Amino acid sequence: MHASTFLHRLFGDRGEGMHRECRDVIALCRNLLGERGEASGAALARETLAAFSALGPASRDQFFDILAAEFSPSPEAVGAAADAYRIDPTPANLSRLQVLVEPVRQELFRRLNMAPGGTAALEAMRRLLLRGVPDHPAWQAVDADLLHLLRSWFNRGFLRMERIDWRTSALVLEKLIAYEAVHAIQGWPDLRRRLQADRRCFAFFHPSLPDEPLIFIEVALTRRVSAVVQPLLAPDAPVSDPRDARCAIFYSITNCQDGLRGISFGNFLIKQVAEELKQEFPRLRAFATLSPIPGFRAWLDSVRGRLAAGMAGEARLALLSRLDAPDWPTAGDESLRHLLTGLCAYYLLHAKQGRDPLDTVARFHLGNGASLERLNWMGDSSAQGIKRSAGMMVNYVYRLDHVERNHERFVNEHVVVTARRIQKLARECPLAGDGRGPTGR
Amino acid sequence: MHASTFLHRLFGDRGEGMHRECRDVIALCRNLLGERGEASGAALARETLAAFSALGPASRDQFFDILAAEFSPSPEAVGAAADAYRIDPTPANLSRLQVLVEPVRQELFRRLNMAPGGTAALEAMRRLLLRGVPDHPAWQAVDADLLHLLRSWFNRGFLRMERIDWRTSALVLEKLIAYEAVHAIQGWPDLRRRLQADRRCFAFFHPSLPDEPLIFIEVALTRRVSAVVQPLLAPDAPVSDPRDARCAIFYSITNCQDGLRGISFGNFLIKQVAEELKQEFPRLRAFATLSPIPGFRAWLDSVRGRLAAGMAGEARLALLSRLDAPDWPTAGDESLRHLLTGLCAYYLLHAKQGRDPLDTVARFHLGNGASLERLNWMGDSSAQGIKRSAGMMVNYVYRLDHVERNHERFVNEHVVVTARRIQKLARECPLAGDGRGPTGR
Amino acid sequence: MHASTFLHRLFGDRGEGMHRECRDVIALCRNLLGERGEASGAALARETLAAFSALGPASRDQFFDILAAEFSPSPEAVGAAADAYRIDPTPANLSRLQVLVEPVRQELFRRLNMAPGGTAALEAMRRLLLRGVPDHPAWQAVDADLLHLLRSWFNRGFLRMERIDWRTSALVLEKLIAYEAVHAIQGWPDLRRRLQADRRCFAFFHPSLPDEPLIFIEVALTRRVSAVVQPLLAPDAPVSDPRDARCAIFYSITNCQDGLRGISFGNFLIKQVAEELKQEFPRLRAFATLSPIPGFRAWLDSVRGRLAAGMAGEARLALLSRLDAPDWPTAGDESLRHLLTGLCAYYLLHAKQGRDPLDTVARFHLGNGASLERLNWMGDSSAQGIKRSAGMMVNYVYRLDHVERNHERFVNEHVVVTARRIQKLARECPLAGDGRGPTGR
Amino acid sequence: MHASTFLHRLFGDRGEGMHRECRDVIALCRNLLGERGEASGAALARETLAAFSALGPASRDQFFDILAAEFSPSPEAVGAAADAYRIDPTPANLSRLQVLVEPVRQELFRRLNMAPGGTAALEAMRRLLLRGVPDHPAWQAVDADLLHLLRSWFNRGFLRMERIDWRTSALVLEKLIAYEAVHAIQGWPDLRRRLQADRRCFAFFHPSLPDEPLIFIEVALTRRVSAVVQPLLAPDAPVSDPRDARCAIFYSITNCQDGLRGISFGNFLIKQVAEELKQEFPRLRAFATLSPIPGFRAWLDSVRGRLAAGMAGEARLALLSRLDAPDWPTAGDESLRHLLTGLCAYYLLHAKQGRDPLDTVARFHLGNGASLERLNWMGDSSAQGIKRSAGMMVNYVYRLDHVERNHERFVNEHVVVTARRIQKLARECPLAGDGRGPTGR
Repeated sequence: MHASTFLHRLFGDRGEGMHRECRDVIALCRNLLGERGEASGAALARETLAAFSALGPASRDQFFDILAAEFSPSPEAVGAAADAYRIDPTPANLSRLQVLVEPVRQELFRRLNMAPGGTAALEAMRRLLLRGVPDHPAWQAVDADLLHLLRSWFNRGFLRMERIDWRTSALVLEKLIAYEAVHAIQGWPDLRRRLQADRRCFAFFHPSLPDEPLIFIEVALTRRVSAVVQPLLAPDAPVSDPRDARCAIFYSITNCQDGLRGISFGNFLIKQVAEELKQEFPRLRAFATLSPIPGFRAWLDSVRGRLAAGMAGEARLALLSRLDAPDWPTAGDESLRHLLTGLCAYYLLHAKQGRDPLDTVARFHLGNGASLERLNWMGDSSAQGIKRSAGMMVNYVYRLDHVERNHERFVNEHVVVTARRIQKLARECPLAGDGRGPTGR
Repeated sequence: MHASTFLHRLFGDRGEGMHRECRDVIALCRNLLGERGEASGAALARETLAAFSALGPASRDQFFDILAAEFSPSPEAVGAAADAYRIDPTPANLSRLQVLVEPVRQELFRRLNMAPGGTAALEAMRRLLLRGVPDHPAWQAVDADLLHLLRSWFNRGFLRMERIDWRTSALVLEKLIAYEAVHAIQGWPDLRRRLQADRRCFAFFHPSLPDEPLIFIEVALTRRVSAVVQPLLAPDAPVSDPRDARCAIFYSITNCQDGLRGISFGNFLIKQVAEELKQEFPRLRAFATLSPIPGFRAWLDSVRGRLAAGMAGEARLALLSRLDAPDWPTAGDESLRHLLTGLCAYYLLHAKQGRDPLDTVARFHLGNGASLERLNWMGDSSAQGIKRSAGMMVNYVYRLDHVERNHERFVNEHVVVTARRIQKLARECPLAGDGRGPTGR
Repeated sequence: MHASTFLHRLFGDRGEGMHRECRDVIALCRNLLGERGEASGAALARETLAAFSALGPASRDQFFDILAAEFSPSPEAVGAAADAYRIDPTPANLSRLQVLVEPVRQELFRRLNMAPGGTAALEAMRRLLLRGVPDHPAWQAVDADLLHLLRSWFNRGFLRMERIDWRTSALVLEKLIAYEAVHAIQGWPDLRRRLQADRRCFAFFHPSLPDEPLIFIEVALTRRVSAVVQPLLAPDAPVSDPRDARCAIFYSITNCQDGLRGISFGNFLIKQVAEELKQEFPRLRAFATLSPIPGFRAWLDSVRGRLAAGMAGEARLALLSRLDAPDWPTAGDESLRHLLTGLCAYYLLHAKQGRDPLDTVARFHLGNGASLERLNWMGDSSAQGIKRSAGMMVNYVYRLDHVERNHERFVNEHVVVTARRIQKLARECPLAGDGRGPTGR
Repeated sequence: MHASTFLHRLFGDRGEGMHRECRDVIALCRNLLGERGEASGAALARETLAAFSALGPASRDQFFDILAAEFSPSPEAVGAAADAYRIDPTPANLSRLQVLVEPVRQELFRRLNMAPGGTAALEAMRRLLLRGVPDHPAWQAVDADLLHLLRSWFNRGFLRMERIDWRTSALVLEKLIAYEAVHAIQGWPDLRRRLQADRRCFAFFHPSLPDEPLIFIEVALTRRVSAVVQPLLAPDAPVSDPRDARCAIFYSITNCQDGLRGISFGNFLIKQVAEELKQEFPRLRAFATLSPIPGFRAWLDSVRGRLAAGMAGEARLALLSRLDAPDWPTAGDESLRHLLTGLCAYYLLHAKQGRDPLDTVARFHLGNGASLERLNWMGDSSAQGIKRSAGMMVNYVYRLDHVERNHERFVNEHVVVTARRIQKLARECPLAGDGRGPTGR
C-alpha cells in the first residue's frame, strides 16, 4: 500500500506502534503539506478529513499525539533564529523567526480548510480535541493552533447577524431547540412562542457554516423590566404589540459551537442587537437582561461555616437548611427571602475569581460593560432555577452610553457598577461584617 | 485635544516630529488595541480606518514607518522566550514565544477588520503599502503581517466561484472592464460578446468583498484549440452553439486586487472552472490556454549578442532588425517566422529565473501542472501582442489527469512537460548549439 | 356620515333594511368602481377589504345577497345587445355584448385585487361564500364570477413548483401539518420523517400567495411499489438511500385552499413531479400512487341488499357483518379478504357517478391518465383507513408514455385502463352476475 | 401527415386555400382546446407557440383571420341564451350566456399561457396583431380577447415595483437603454449617470416576465423644481447628496411592452414612487414632472389661420415664421418667447380631443390627478424638443393630498387644475379673444 510504504520512509520503526488507520491519516497530512497538496488542493484536503473522521477513538488519540509531537517547531532552529533577531532585528530576521515558530500544524489546518465543509470539520476536530485536553496536556499546543486560526477566521468582521423568526428554515430552528442552554426549549410550540411579534431572536452566522448559528440571543419586548422569567417562557402567554414595549429583556444567550470555545461573540451580539432594536423601536428605554446566577447555590454551601459563626449564626443555618426541603420555594417566608437576597448581593459583589466576579454570568455581562441593577426573588422557579440559583435572578442593564466606560473601569479597576440598593443589601449581609474579605477562588 | 495629549504620554518628545494627523491615527490604533477597543469594537475600528484613509501621502508614510518601527516584537523578549523554549520545549513555552513573536500589528489589523468594510480597507492599505515598499524596505515587516492575515482570511475554503454573465450586476461587470489585464475590454459591447453563449467567465468572490471579483477567467468554447486570439475577441464574431464545442480555451486570466498580491487564486480557479465545464459539456476534450509570452521581446533584445556570434550571425541580426519597422508583421516572411519560432521555443524551455521559466505566464501555467503544447505565429497581432511577444502566442494544455504529476515534476525536478515539436524547435534554434547554456536571470 | 348619505342616494328606502356595516361596505364598493377607485387604487381597495372582513355573519350574508342581486347584468340590456349581435355579428357588437354580459362584480373583484394581499382576501371571500351557497342558491352567480377570475389568475403558467424540505421556512411547514388531508401529520417529528432523503414533497405556489402552498404532494422513494402505507408514515422508519430507489410512490396529495375549489392543480403537479424525479433519479422505473378508496365502505352499505340476494347471500352478509366488530381487522380471515377484495374491484370498475367512477380518488387519478394496477388488502390499517376503505388501498400507476392516451380514452370512451387481475376479481365478484349492471349514483 | 389529415376533417375544402403551416398551427390549437390539451398541458401549449412563432407573415395573417372568424361565439346560440336570460334572469341562465358569449379564443389563450414563457409569447402575439389591426379591422375581436386576458393577468395586484440601479443585472439595464422613449439613453455612461445617488429609477415587473420591465420612470432629486431638462441628462453633471433634495422631478416615463398597450401602469407607478421617495426622504416637498408637450408644434401649424386674423395678425405670423430657421432657438427674442408661451398655455388649457386635453402627455398627468403648474421656455433645447414642442416644457405637480379630488374633477367635470399665471397667459393669448372657442379634434 502506497500510503504505508510512504510512512515507513517517514517514521521508520517508530511507525510500527501506530494504528494502521492513524498512519494513513498522517501520511495524507504530509502529502497535503507537500507539493501534491498544492496542486490538488481541495480534493486531497477532503480525502484527509474523511479519513480523520473515520478514525476510532484510540487512533484519534494517537493522531492528536502525533500532531502535538511531530508537527511542532524545532527548539534548536527556533532558538538560532531568535538569536539572529536579537542581534540584528531586521524584518528579514523577524520573518524567518516567525516562519520557524509557527508550527507546521497551522499550515496543515489551513490546507484542510480548503476542502468543502473544511471549516465545519476543523470546528468538529477541535471539539473532540478539547474533550481530551484534560487527560492529554500536550494537546494544548495543538489546541492553541486551532484556536489561533479559528479566531482569525471567525473575526467579527466576517460574521453576519441574522434575525431568526418563524420564516427561518426548520433546519436552523431545530438547532435552536437543540442548543438552547439557559431555558430549555420544550419543542416546536415553545419555540414558536419565542419567535412571535413581541419576541426577538438574533444569531451570528459565518459564511462557511451557513446553517449553523454560532451564538443566539432571545429577547422579550415588554412594558417593564421583567423580574420573573416564567411568564416570558409560557407558550400560551398572550402576544402583545411590540410597539408598546419600553424594555428589551435579554433572557437567554447561548453559545452553540463547542469547537469555537474561547472565541467570544456575545459581547458583539448584545450590542448589535441593542442597536438594531433601538432602530426598529425608537421608544425602547431599557436594555436589560434577566439572568440566572448559576454559581450562587454552590457558593452558598461553601460559606456555611462563616455563616454559622457570630451572633444568630445558628438561626441562619436553620433558615438555610430549609433549602434542603424540596418544597421550600412555596414554603419560603420573608425571613428566608431577606437572608438569601442579602447573601446573593454579597455573592455578586464580593465573591471573586482572582479580581473578577466568581459568577460566570456576572463576569460576562459586567465585563461587557453592563451594570448590576436588581435582584429578583423567585425570578426563576423552575427546578433548575431553584437548584442553581435558589430561585434568584438578576437584571444586568446595558446603558449604551455607559458601556465603554463601565467596561474600562471593570477591566482596569475591577469596579462593578452596581445599583445602590444592591450595595446596601450586600453591606447588611451577615458576611459583610465578619472581616474576612472577599470569598471565592 | 485629547488624542494628542494622550500621544504626548505615549511618545514624549519623539511625537513632536510627527504630523498631527498621523499622531491622531496612531493614538486611535493604540486605543483600539486597549480595553476601549475590546468594548467598543466596530465603532472604534471604523473611526480609525476613516482617519487612516484621510491621511495625506507624507503622513501615511510616517504612519507606515511607525507601524514598522513601534508595533514590532521586542528582540530581547523574543530572545529570552526562545531560550526558554530551546531549553524546555513545552506547549506553554511555545505558546509564550508565539505570542511574543507575533507583532502587535497583527492584532491591530484583526481589530480593524471588525469595522464594516474592514477587509476592503485593509486590502487597500496593503495596496498603498506595497507601492512604497521598494523605497521603504522596513515596511516589508508590515507587509509580511498583512499578507499573513489576508492569506489566512482569503483561504480557498472561504472563496466562492461564481459565473459572470449578462445577468450579473452592472456594478460587477464594470469592474471586469476596468480590471481586465490581458486583452483590454473596449466597452460594454465588447464585454457583452465575451459573455455570450459560447463564452464563459468565472470569478472568485470572498464574502467580505461581495461586489469585488478577486480573480476572473475568460473562456471561449470552440471546435478546435485556438491559435489566434483576435477572432475570439471580435465583438461581432458569430455566436456558436456551445454544445458543439470540443475545446475550452482560457484566453484571459486577471488578478483584480493589488492588495492581495502574493496570494494565489489562479491555480484553484482554472481547475474548478475545468471541472465545472466538464460537468456542463461532457463532450469537451481539451482544456487549453491561449497565452501571451510577455517577456519574449525583452529577452530577445538581451540575447542579440549571442545571436550575432557564429555562422550566419550577421544574417540573423539583419533578419531580427526588421522587427524595428512598425509594419514588420505584415511584411514578415518565412525566414523571419522560422527564426522567431525557434527562438521562442528556446526562450520558453531554456530562459530561466533561478531554475524556473523566466516567462511569468509560463511559470504560472507550468507550475499549475499544464504542459507546453503549441507555438502560434501571429497569434496576437495587436499592438501590444507585437510589442511584447513579437506576435507569438502559446497554448498551455491542462490535462486533468496529469496536472498533479506535472506539478510535482515541475516543482521537484524543474521539468517542463513539452510537446516534441517544441523541443525540436528549441534544439534547432541558433542559440542551442552555442554552448552557453540557459539564459535569463 | 358620508358613506350612508351616499348610500341613501344609491338605495333610497331599500337601504333602510340593511345593516349599517353592510351598507358601508357596499358604498365603498361603489366608490371603488367609480372614478375615485381609479385614482386611489390600492388604498381604497384595501379599505374596502378591511371593512368586508370586519362584517359579522349576518351582514356578510346581506353583502353577498346584494352582490348577487345588484351587481348583475341587466337582462334587458343584455337581450338587446344579443339581438344586435345576432343580426349583425361584428366585432363591435360582440364586444358590446361581452361588456354587458359581464357582471360589474367582476370589475369589483379585479379592483379589490389591487390591494396588498388582495388575492388572499378574495380567496378567503370565496371560501366564506362557498360555505353559504347550499343555503343561498342565488350566490352561485357571485361564485361563478370569483371562480372565473381566480381560474384565470391561477393559470398553470403562473404557478411555480417548489420542493419542500427541511430547509423550508417553518411558516410554510406548519401549514403542511395543518392542511394534510389524507394521512394526518402528527407533529414536527412526523413531518420531519416525511422530508428526509428518501422522501420528497413538492408544492405549487402562486406569486401573490408566497407563503401559501396551493397543493402539495408527498412521495416515498422505494425499492418496490408499496402495498401498505403505515411503514411509509412511521416517524422512526430507517432512511434509505434514494439512489437505490426504483419506485416513486405518491402517497398523499392535498388541496390546501378551499377558496380555490374547482380549479384543478393536481393533474399538473403529479406530472411535473414525475418529470422532476425522473431527471434526478434516472433509474426510477415506476410512478405509482398508494391511494385510499374513500367511498368504498359507504357504497358497501348501499349494496347490502343485492349481496343478500342469490346463492350464499346469507353467508356473505354474515361475513360482512363482521365489519361491525371494532377488532375485525385483526380477526379477519381469508374468506373475508376474498369477498372484500372482489367487491372492491367491482366498486372501482363498475360503481359510477354518471359514466365516471363513483370513487372521487379513482375519478381523479384515472381522469389524469393513470391506470388501475393493484388492490392492497390491509393497505391502511389506521382507524380512518378501516372506517372509510375497510383497510383497502389501491395503486394507480402513471406511465408517462400512456398518460395522454389513457386520459383521452377515459374522457371520450369512459374506459378505465385496468390490470387484468383486477378485471378478473371484478368478474368473479358476487355482484358481477346479478344482471343489474353498474351501481352508484 | 397526421395534423393535416386531421385538418381535412376539420375544414374540408375550405382548408385547401390555407397555407400548410397555418393549417398546422390551427390544428394544434384545436388539439390544445380538446382532451389532449387537458392531459398534456404545457407540452402541447409549447409546441403550438413554437409553431406559431415560426409562421411567415402571410401565414400569420391567415392565422389571425381564422382566429377572428372561426373562434368566435355563434350569434344564434348567443341570441337564444340571451333570450332565455331576458325571460328568466337566473344565475344558471346568466352563466350559460356568459359561457356562450366568451369566444373560444380566450380559452385557447389561457391554455397557451401554460407553456413556459407563455405570457411573453402572448404579449408578443398581441404586438404583432396590433400592428395589423389598422389593415384588418376584423382582428379587433381577437385583440379584445387578448386585451381582456392580459389586463386581468397584469392586474396591479400582481405587479411588483423594483428599484433599478447600478446593481441591477445588465440584462435588464440594456432594456432601459433600448426602450427609453422620452429622452434617449446614449449608452452605458449615460445610463450610469441616471442611476447615481441623486437619481432614482423604478420599474414594474410581473412574475411571468421576470427580466422585462413593463414600465419605468426616471426621477431626479433636486433642490428646486427643474425648468430645463438638459442639466438633468448631462452624463458629467456633478452628483449631489440626495438628502439635500427638496424636489423629486419625474423627467421620463416609458411604457415598454407594445403588446400590453391599453393597460395602464403609469398612474400606479407614479403614485407608488412618490410614496416610496417620501418614505426615504421625508424632507421632499414637491413631486413634479418635467414633461414634453409633444403635440404643441403640430397644433401651432393648425391654428396659423386663426393667428393671421385680427389685429397684428401679420406681425404674429412673421414672428412665428422665424421657427422655420434652424437656429431660431439661439436667435429667439423676448417677443417670440412671449407669443409662444401664451400660445402654449392656450394649447394646454383649450386645445381638446373631445372634452379632454389634446396633448397626450397633458391628458395622462392631468387624468392622474396632477395639476398644471409652470411653463418652461427652452426647457428642452434638444433637436427633438425644438421640433415637437418648440423647446417648451411643462411641470405637472403631484400633490398627494389633492390627487384624488383632481382626478374626480377632471373625469367628471373636465376641469384642469391650473396655476393662476398659466390661466392668465392663456387669457392674454391672441387666440383667446377670437371667439372661436376650443381648438383641436
